Order: sequence, then C-alpha cells, then structure tokens
Amino acid sequence: MSISKETINHEQSLLEKLEKQMTSVAHLGHVEIGVTNLEKSLWFFTEVMGLYVSANEGDKVYLRAWQDFDHHTLVLNKSDVSCVKQIAWRVSSPESLKAFERQFKDMNMEFKWIEGGTKKGQGDTLQFRSPAGLPIELYWEKELFVNTDPATASKLPSHPSKYTGKGVSPRRFDHVNILVNDVAKEQQWWTNLLGVHHRYYIQNDENVRLGSWLSRTNIAHEIALMRNSNQNGALFHHLAYYLDSPDELIRAANLMAENDIKIEWGPGKHGTSGAQFIYVFEPSGHRVEIWTGGFLIFAPDWKPIEWGPEAGPLGLDMWGSKAPESYFAYGTKFL
Amino acid sequence: MSISKETINHEQSLLEKLEKQMTSVAHLGHVEIGVTNLEKSLWFFTEVMGLYVSANEGDKVYLRAWQDFDHHTLVLNKSDVSCVKQIAWRVSSPESLKAFERQFKDMNMEFKWIEGGTKKGQGDTLQFRSPAGLPIELYWEKELFVNTDPATASKLPSHPSKYTGKGVSPRRFDHVNILVNDVAKEQQWWTNLLGVHHRYYIQNDENVRLGSWLSRTNIAHEIALMRNSNQNGALFHHLAYYLDSPDELIRAANLMAENDIKIEWGPGKHGTSGAQFIYVFEPSGHRVEIWTGGFLIFAPDWKPIEWGPEAGPLGLDMWGSKAPESYFAYGTKFL
Amino acid sequence: MSISKETINHEQSLLEKLEKQMTSVAHLGHVEIGVTNLEKSLWFFTEVMGLYVSANEGDKVYLRAWQDFDHHTLVLNKSDVSCVKQIAWRVSSPESLKAFERQFKDMNMEFKWIEGGTKKGQGDTLQFRSPAGLPIELYWEKELFVNTDPATASKLPSHPSKYTGKGVSPRRFDHVNILVNDVAKEQQWWTNLLGVHHRYYIQNDENVRLGSWLSRTNIAHEIALMRNSNQNGALFHHLAYYLDSPDELIRAANLMAENDIKIEWGPGKHGTSGAQFIYVFEPSGHRVEIWTGGFLIFAPDWKPIEWGPEAGPLGLDMWGSKAPESYFAYGTKFL
Amino acid sequence: MSISKETINHEQSLLEKLEKQMTSVAHLGHVEIGVTNLEKSLWFFTEVMGLYVSANEGDKVYLRAWQDFDHHTLVLNKSDVSCVKQIAWRVSSPESLKAFERQFKDMNMEFKWIEGGTKKGQGDTLQFRSPAGLPIELYWEKELFVNTDPATASKLPSHPSKYTGKGVSPRRFDHVNILVNDVAKEQQWWTNLLGVHHRYYIQNDENVRLGSWLSRTNIAHEIALMRNSNQNGALFHHLAYYLDSPDELIRAANLMAENDIKIEWGPGKHGTSGAQFIYVFEPSGHRVEIWTGGFLIFAPDWKPIEWGPEAGPLGLDMWGSKAPESYFAYGTKFL
Repeated sequence: MSISKETINHEQSLLEKLEKQMTSVAHLGHVEIGVTNLEKSLWFFTEVMGLYVSANEGDKVYLRAWQDFDHHTLVLNKSDVSCVKQIAWRVSSPESLKAFERQFKDMNMEFKWIEGGTKKGQGDTLQFRSPAGLPIELYWEKELFVNTDPATASKLPSHPSKYTGKGVSPRRFDHVNILVNDVAKEQQWWTNLLGVHHRYYIQNDENVRLGSWLSRTNIAHEIALMRNSNQNGALFHHLAYYLDSPDELIRAANLMAENDIKIEWGPGKHGTSGAQFIYVFEPSGHRVEIWTGGFLIFAPDWKPIEWGPEAGPLGLDMWGSKAPESYFAYGTKFL
Repeated sequence: MSISKETINHEQSLLEKLEKQMTSVAHLGHVEIGVTNLEKSLWFFTEVMGLYVSANEGDKVYLRAWQDFDHHTLVLNKSDVSCVKQIAWRVSSPESLKAFERQFKDMNMEFKWIEGGTKKGQGDTLQFRSPAGLPIELYWEKELFVNTDPATASKLPSHPSKYTGKGVSPRRFDHVNILVNDVAKEQQWWTNLLGVHHRYYIQNDENVRLGSWLSRTNIAHEIALMRNSNQNGALFHHLAYYLDSPDELIRAANLMAENDIKIEWGPGKHGTSGAQFIYVFEPSGHRVEIWTGGFLIFAPDWKPIEWGPEAGPLGLDMWGSKAPESYFAYGTKFL
Repeated sequence: MSISKETINHEQSLLEKLEKQMTSVAHLGHVEIGVTNLEKSLWFFTEVMGLYVSANEGDKVYLRAWQDFDHHTLVLNKSDVSCVKQIAWRVSSPESLKAFERQFKDMNMEFKWIEGGTKKGQGDTLQFRSPAGLPIELYWEKELFVNTDPATASKLPSHPSKYTGKGVSPRRFDHVNILVNDVAKEQQWWTNLLGVHHRYYIQNDENVRLGSWLSRTNIAHEIALMRNSNQNGALFHHLAYYLDSPDELIRAANLMAENDIKIEWGPGKHGTSGAQFIYVFEPSGHRVEIWTGGFLIFAPDWKPIEWGPEAGPLGLDMWGSKAPESYFAYGTKFL
Repeated sequence: MSISKETINHEQSLLEKLEKQMTSVAHLGHVEIGVTNLEKSLWFFTEVMGLYVSANEGDKVYLRAWQDFDHHTLVLNKSDVSCVKQIAWRVSSPESLKAFERQFKDMNMEFKWIEGGTKKGQGDTLQFRSPAGLPIELYWEKELFVNTDPATASKLPSHPSKYTGKGVSPRRFDHVNILVNDVAKEQQWWTNLLGVHHRYYIQNDENVRLGSWLSRTNIAHEIALMRNSNQNGALFHHLAYYLDSPDELIRAANLMAENDIKIEWGPGKHGTSGAQFIYVFEPSGHRVEIWTGGFLIFAPDWKPIEWGPEAGPLGLDMWGSKAPESYFAYGTKFL
C-alpha cells in the first residue's frame, strides 16, 4: 500500500491548521519597564495608583492590580534610562512555544530561549523582536498570585487579595500602546504571526494608517500601534490599567491633581473603543493611561472598523478636545 | 512505501484535536422568549429597559442593546404561555456546524437542521436539547445590525446605533441563567460537548452543587446553572443585560421604582463574579437581571473557583442580604 | 414722661436690623432667556437636557428639572436676538418686597412694580437693574409645580413629577454666571444690597478681581461674576443645572456628542467650588453648564476664600486643562 | 412728650421678631459619642470610613471628613458604655446664645453654661435637654480646621486638607437620627424653640407619627426623629456622613464587606429624601449611615411633605426592600 498525494496533502493541511491554532498568543501578560527613579515611581504605582507589591527584590519590584490573578502585570526595574524591557504575552497552549520556535526557524527569525525559573514566577520563555524592534517575550507558565498575608487576604475566593480602594485602585492590567513609523506593516506582523486580531484603525486623508488596535481576547485592544509623528522609530507610548466606572475615572483625576501628577490629556473619550481616559506621566517619565468603558468583541470573524479622515478626530476624542502634540511624539525607549 | 501504524495514529490524533477545536461555541448569541403580554413586555423592554427594536413582525419582535453588534440579542414571541423557546449560540468557525453534526451522530443524540433564512437574519441552524431539556440552537451566520434610519444612526463607526441613554440603556446582552435539578451533570455536558468553560461553583455542606457558572468567552459567565430548590425540572431563571457602572445600576433601580416594576432582589453584589445586580420581573413574568462590574478571565487553563459552604452566602451577596425564596424556585418554562 | 435719646436710638437700631433682615433674597428662582430659534432650543432643553415643559404658550415655554419644586426655573422666549430678559430671585419673607421698595427709594434707585398675575404663576414683582446693568426681578409668590398628568405623576410625594432619566436629566436648576467689567464693584452691590454672601474669588497678579462667586443659600454659588476680558460691558455667561454624580456628567458629555452639541470646555473640574463640569452651547447660542459635586457652606460667618495668582489656574481647572479664549469673552446680551 | 401705648407695643413687636430671629440654630455642628472600644472604633472611622484625626487626646479623638471646614464633626470618647454625650449645634449669630438664655429663663427650662475653652476649640456653650431627654449644646464660636502638616495640606484653598480617597472617604458630616416615643411632640419642640424647620414626615394608618425629618439649612434633614417601636424612651439611631455619588456608595458597601463590618440595611433608597443609603454598625455598636443623593430645600415657606400609610413604605425604601426589625428598635443610649 502506498500513500497517495492526496493523503499527504491532507495531512499537511491538518498540520498547518493545528500549527496556526497553536502559534497564537492567549493574552497580554505584563510589561517590564526601566525606571530612573525607582523610589518615586514605586510611590506613584503603589500610593497614587494603588497597585499591590507582589515581590520586591530591591532593584526589581513586581506589581499587580487588586484583581489581577497573575503574580504580576508590571515590573519596575531600577535603570539608568527610562525604557521598556519586555512586553510579555502568554501563549495559548503548552505546545505553543515549540510551535512558535518551529515557525521562527522557518522564517529565519532571531529568537532566544530563557530557561524557566530564570525570570521570577515564569516558565520557559521565548524572546524576539517585532519588525519595528519591540522586545517581546512569550511564556506558557506563570505563577498565579497567592496571598500569604492575612492582613491583605480576602474572605472572597474571587479576590486574589482584599479590595482596599486605596488610590486609583484599578481592577486589572489592560493594554500597551506603541508609537511606530509604519503602523500597517507592524499590525500585519502581529496579526499574521502572533494571531492578534485587528480590531479598528484610523486612516488619514492621504490613506496613511495613523493607528491600529489589536487584541487576541474579547477586550477591544491589548496592544495599540500609533504612527510616530516624528518618524524616529519605535517608542513606548503607554501602559494602561482598567477602572470599573466613569466615577472612578473622575476620582483618579482628583487623586492625580492632589498628588501633583501631571495629566497630559483628559478626561476624554476615545470614540474608537469608547474608552473614557486620562493620561498621566509617572515620575520616571512613562505615560500611563487609566480608563473605563469600552466594548467587548465576541465575533470570531470580526471585521476591523475603519475610521476615515472625517470620523478620525471623533475616534481620538468624541467629546471634542484635541490631544496635545506630545501625545503623537513622546514615548519612552525600548532597550 | 507503506503507511505505518504510527502515521495513521498520528493523523487520527490530529483529526481529533481539530474536531475538538471545531466543536465549540464562540459565544452566546440571543434568547427567544414567549410572552403572554407582548404589548406590555415590549413596553418594558423598550421604554423601561431602553432596548432598540431591530425588526417588528407583529407577533415577533427583535431587540438589541445599543451596542449589540448583532441584529438581535432578544426575541419576543407572542405566546399563550410565558416560556423560553431557544437559547442560541454562535459556533467558533464555519466548519463547526458540520463537526457538531458528526459528533451528535456519534453520540446518537437527536438534533434537527433548520435551513438558513428560515429564521430572521440567521444561517443554517442546528437544534437539540441538553440533558436537562434546554432547547439549544447553534448557528454560524447571523446578520449584523445595520442602521438604515438617519435619526438613530451615529456618526461614530463604533456605534451600531446612536446612544440615546433612554431608560436603563444597557450596553449589551450578557448571559442566561437556568434552574436545573442536577447542576454538576448539566455543567459537565456543557463543558465537554460545547466547550463552555467552567468558571466557578458553589457547593453546600452536603457537597451538593448549588450553582455553576460557565463561559466560552472572557466574560465570567455566559450561562449559569443553579439548583432548582423544588427539584421539579429545568426552568428559565433569567436573562441579563450589562451596564457600564454602579451608578447606572442605581439609576436602573430608580426607573424600575417609578415604573412599578417589582425588584425581586437587589441592589446586591454576587461575591462570585463581583456582579452588582438587580433582578426584576418583566410584565409577562420572565426574570431579568441588570448588572455591572465583574471580572474577565484570560487564562487559557483557568481552574474553576470553589465556593464552599462558608463562603457560599458571600458568593450570593457579599453585602449580606438574603435572596428571597422565589429566587431559588421560580422560573419560566422551556417549550 | 419723655422719651430719652437712647430709647429712640435703640428703636432705630432695632428697625435697621429688621430692615436688613428683610431686604435679602431667599434664593435664585429662574432665568428668562430670549432665543432666536425657539424650536431647536426647545428640542435641546427637552430632548437632550431632559427638562420638563410646565407650560407652553407658543412663544413662551416654561421649563423645570425633574425635581424643581417651582413651576419653572427657565423660561424660553421667542426673540429676534438671543438675550437674557430677567434674572429672578425669591425674597426671604412676605414683607421683603416692601422693605426693598423703601430701601430703593432711600437710595434713589429706579425700579418698577409688575402686578401679581401679570407674569405666569408669579405674584407682585419688583424690577430693577444692577450697577453693571443686569435685569433683576424679585418676587415672594410663585406657584409650585403641580402635576396634573397621570402619565408623568409619581407615586412618591417627594417627586413633583416622575423621574424618567430622559436625556441629561439634571436634578435641579442651580446658578447663573455673568461677565462684567468690574467684578469687585458688582459683587459688593449684590452682597450689600441683596444680601447675597460672597463665597470665594480669584485675583490676578495685578490684584484685579477675575471672578467672584456668591450665594444666599448653602450652595457654593447662585450667581457668579467673571471679568469680561474684552471689557465691553455685561454679558450673560451661562445658566447651570445640577447632576447627582460624575457618572451622570460623563453620560451628559456622551449625549452631547451623539446630538452634535458642541462642548466648549470639559469635562473639567473647578478647584474653587469642586464643580465637575461641561459647558455647551444650546442652539440659540446661550452657554449652558452641566455640573456635579461641589461643597455646601453652612457657616453663618463664612469668610470668602481667596484664590491668588498661583492657585487661580487650579481654581479654573484643577485637572490642568485651559479654558478656551471664548470662555472669558463670549456671552449673550442683556435686554 | 409721652410715649404712646402704640409706640411701646411696636417696640415690643420688633423685639419679639428679633428675638425669634436670634433664637435659632444655624446648623448641626458635631456629635460626641462614647465608645467602649476606642481602638477598634478609631480604626473603623479612620481606616474604613477614611475620616481624618484633627486631634487625639488619648481618651478623646476629634474627627472630620476631608471637606469638613470645622475642626471636628465627630468626637470619640473612651467610655464604659456606648452612648451619645452631646449633639452640638452652632447658633445663627453672636447674640443668639444670650437670646436663648433669656428664652430658657422665661420658660423655666434647665440649662448650664460651659465656659469657652473648656471644650476643645469651642467658645461659650449652653447645654440643656429636649423633652425626650436628648443632650443638646449650642455654641457660636468653634475653630475651623487649619492644616499644619505639609503631607496632608492641599494646594487647593477650597480643601481644608488633601483629598486622599482613603476608605469610604465621605465629603462631609451630614445629620443625626434619634428614636423617641413621641415623634410629633419632640418635632414641635425642635421647630418652635430651636427654629429647625419640619421637612417631611410619615404617618401610619392610625395617624400616629412614625418619623419626622428636620433641618435649619437647605439640606433635607439635619436631625431625624423616628418612633421607637419598643416605646422605651429616646435612643440614638445613627449619625450620617455624605458621599458624592451612588458609585461611592457601592464602593463603601464593598469596603464594609472586605472589612467584616456588618451592613444592617442597604443599599436602599429612602423615597422621602431620595437618600441612597447603607447602614452599618461601628465596632462599639453605634449605627452609622453612609449616603448620597437627596434634594435641597430652598423655599423659605416650605410646607412639610406628608407620607401617608400607602406611600410610607416607599418613603422607607422606594426600591422595595424592608428594613430589619432592629432598624426600628435598636439604638445606643444618651448619657
């Protein structure tokens, strides 16, 4: 008995489908940033933002929001320059890391393995760069946060730690946003290679892509890509934590004002996602977004929404305010 | 060249994985209910709740929330008895319906095809019953809502129709809840056959399952199963629409009071999901939940949270109120 | 027996105290505005703002918020020019109108009586002008709103009419704001003659008064006076309705955006009063403020709070946004 | 020249009017409570409620909300029994204390002077009892809170101290509520003698007064009197602090749940005032209300609103929940 060409083709097609299925991320996990003023940045993220310290190693502090189930969603690294070191994503299955490796090899893409346990609470990790140069890492295993301090443990099994309402007190980590020179190109790479769906985008009147928003999960975006108006390469625009209500957003703005944290823009409302936002600068210069609202996307065949030149400004702020110049040009570096 | 056993086994294993992948729902789509008083129920859902009419066929009215992208998420049918006719789910891929058919045949399960176009805005549909007798239908194709009335069209491409803020004005359809005799059994069927993940559950002190909450998407639950305290079979407990804030929930309670709609329970807060809720009865006797808050689940390997006998009451209301008896026994019928 | 000088002086002193007591307003009652586009302005105030029509006389429409107990707090007059016709205040006692008349005569101030019943729902009325030329009227008697339509009557005796939550749906009328050339002078007149307490004020670095906020009641201001940056006389800056929460303010901003009503400024937060605000232009060109928050003043010997050159900008917006130029110069006329 | 009888009568009438004017309170100032567990009560009021300590004398702690302008609005006294020691009101003018003294002497009422400075931050004080036995004190002078700690001082002159958002973080002290045997009698005394206006009341179907709400200021009530269902004399029902929004109320309920503070009733909504509330017990057994919403009363001739037997239950909770038995019977003692 011999194998027909059809049989071989069929198997190949099955294999490709499965590989495709496996080479996808599950969700954004955390971001690792370098901060020049660790003490003040830590004060900002704990006292003003109300994040919780999961672990403090002196020059590295691991943080999470009160209902982040993971051990950390933000890592602060003492650093000579304010920068972003890693954008970390969890993959969709235990087999995915190997599948990604096969894919990267096929593509002759550079990548690096970090052995499990090297990074706090994290298993084997695959590191590489996007076309625009963003440092990305993928992992399957990551510790969940387990509360061992009775003072902060909640009697509610749904609360990884007690809700204290301290500071801004966001519910969870949400997304990152990056300035790049060529939005369309970078977006396609994220969608095709990592399986992060394209959700909506803004085109200007010369048909240049000004921004694209992407997610693997049902939230509207886990990563946004915006055109760097200076065209000087990739810069980290902001990281974002999510609040439960407009009221909490206003409360956050009040806390920023009392604590001398500059609000760059907002309160405003992105028409694109429906996100009601404020943007602030933490003491080491990273931009942080605090937001609420927005829609979820359930359709498995979602077609990206286009915001053309006319609707674009409403996409940025449907209430009519204009973003400051800095919003389209300022970001922190990638290391 | 001959095919080795390994090759065949390998192919079978691939096929099984793919079948498993395909035989899963994508998300809850809509619920079709029979109402004895169509006029008053329609008044409730449009004037008090603020849902939008997508189509009105006289004895069938199709409704959606302002940001539901689908053509409808609720169908009201003029009926002699208040009942639930279908709980409809979208499947995860175009191939899924056929894959489900193969699966059902293998299991000798009864099912029925409804040809595409028979149901308004819906493609080929597979109908069948769960072990407890719930009428379920699966579809891949469903029309999106397209606004053709300039008066209700929004200039925002992210808004399928203008936000008017009329009545309760929920953002979107959320979930259904069912009373059954045997929660654990029904839950396993939903998880194993339809791929709806188990998220959290309540056990009483005799280790009987009092409730289980399940979802395929990142929201905490799309379907809940609760133990019928009368043990007289499956009953429809409620359908739920989602609000953006606690403030909107209080506003909803005020609107219910002014419109003589009985609030059965709430405002309260389920400790399990963090849902802040009110439950009301619409004029034909169906229970409707309006809620806000709650968490999203991103982990692809989520382990269901157990709420044991001690934490259970907090799971029902962490603020300390007790559900009325009716909450555990009253429901509308399945047809 | 003869009357001693002391006895006479004593009686005079008592009389003066009582006169002082009587010549004070009780609270701001309503404002009467001329609108060039009555139809569109009426659409704005009823459909977008959600005010209720108490009476419609064709070219005059009487409006109130859902919990305004008075028959009206806003009157729209069909007019050739957008203007403000009267700012009406209730006086503190039945004897006050006569006491004011005595006072005005002593001061040789011009005034005019309007007989009770001439104006809808209003008793005898005294009309006159402030130094800056604002048209003011005082009255003691004004009809309360009595709901005679079962469709809008509430079963709650505390609700003059049912709460519908339609549109912005403010709870009550709040204050007026006026641009004048000389703030300090106008403020002193209002405080000394009408008994409206001075609450807080902004001085620039040349010690010029930029704004003063005054109230007779416990709310932070019923009338505000701001410096006209063009120094071209008195202009009506805005009228304001009050909301119950920041959440409702954000909802209001969303409704403005969907209804193509330009938001001039906001959401922002005045540091002075703590008012969280948006300012919009209604279709005939009057500025309308919608706001929430702020403090109440209970001290009978309140000392006005000074906002000097350094704190002043925070007084305008403590979140850091800058008011547009138009905010300090644009207003509608007084007739 | 002789004095005519008319002249004398006239002077007497003037004097009476002025006396009446002077013998009125201005507003509720603070309440002084005895607590059996000072440490835990202090933890509750500072860590959970988020009140600020103005002064701590070891067995007496002076507290205020973040925007209370007075030095304190609550005093905790270490005590063998949980009790209420004083309900303190500010009077309306510097002459009022003497006028009250004249009045009390005329009525042969017992009273006591406490010399200025004896009580922290308070001038000369007049102490006496109401018919039901409530301990009342009146004062004119009381220190304002002056922030001397740079860490808690705000750059905003309108903020007596920085807003931190810690715990429940109410904006201001609001009112007290007392259980008495005879509501109508006690209410008349407060209105006639102290000038505290009657705002609304509930009558049962036997025409017995179940509750009366009174205020001197524009807020709906500063003191409430409710019928003690046990008819065993006067008991302190609760003290109340005010929040800015329904959202903050829900947040407060969450904080109570996480901190094991029992919520006796709520979230609910009093139809009478529109107050959205929760009632909790602080660790020494005093009931505390946290609330938001409600209306202001501006009319100088306000006619009390009657809530008859039919509307009464809506007056208690317009959302339909029933107060627990304890709500009508439990209170702490007056010393």
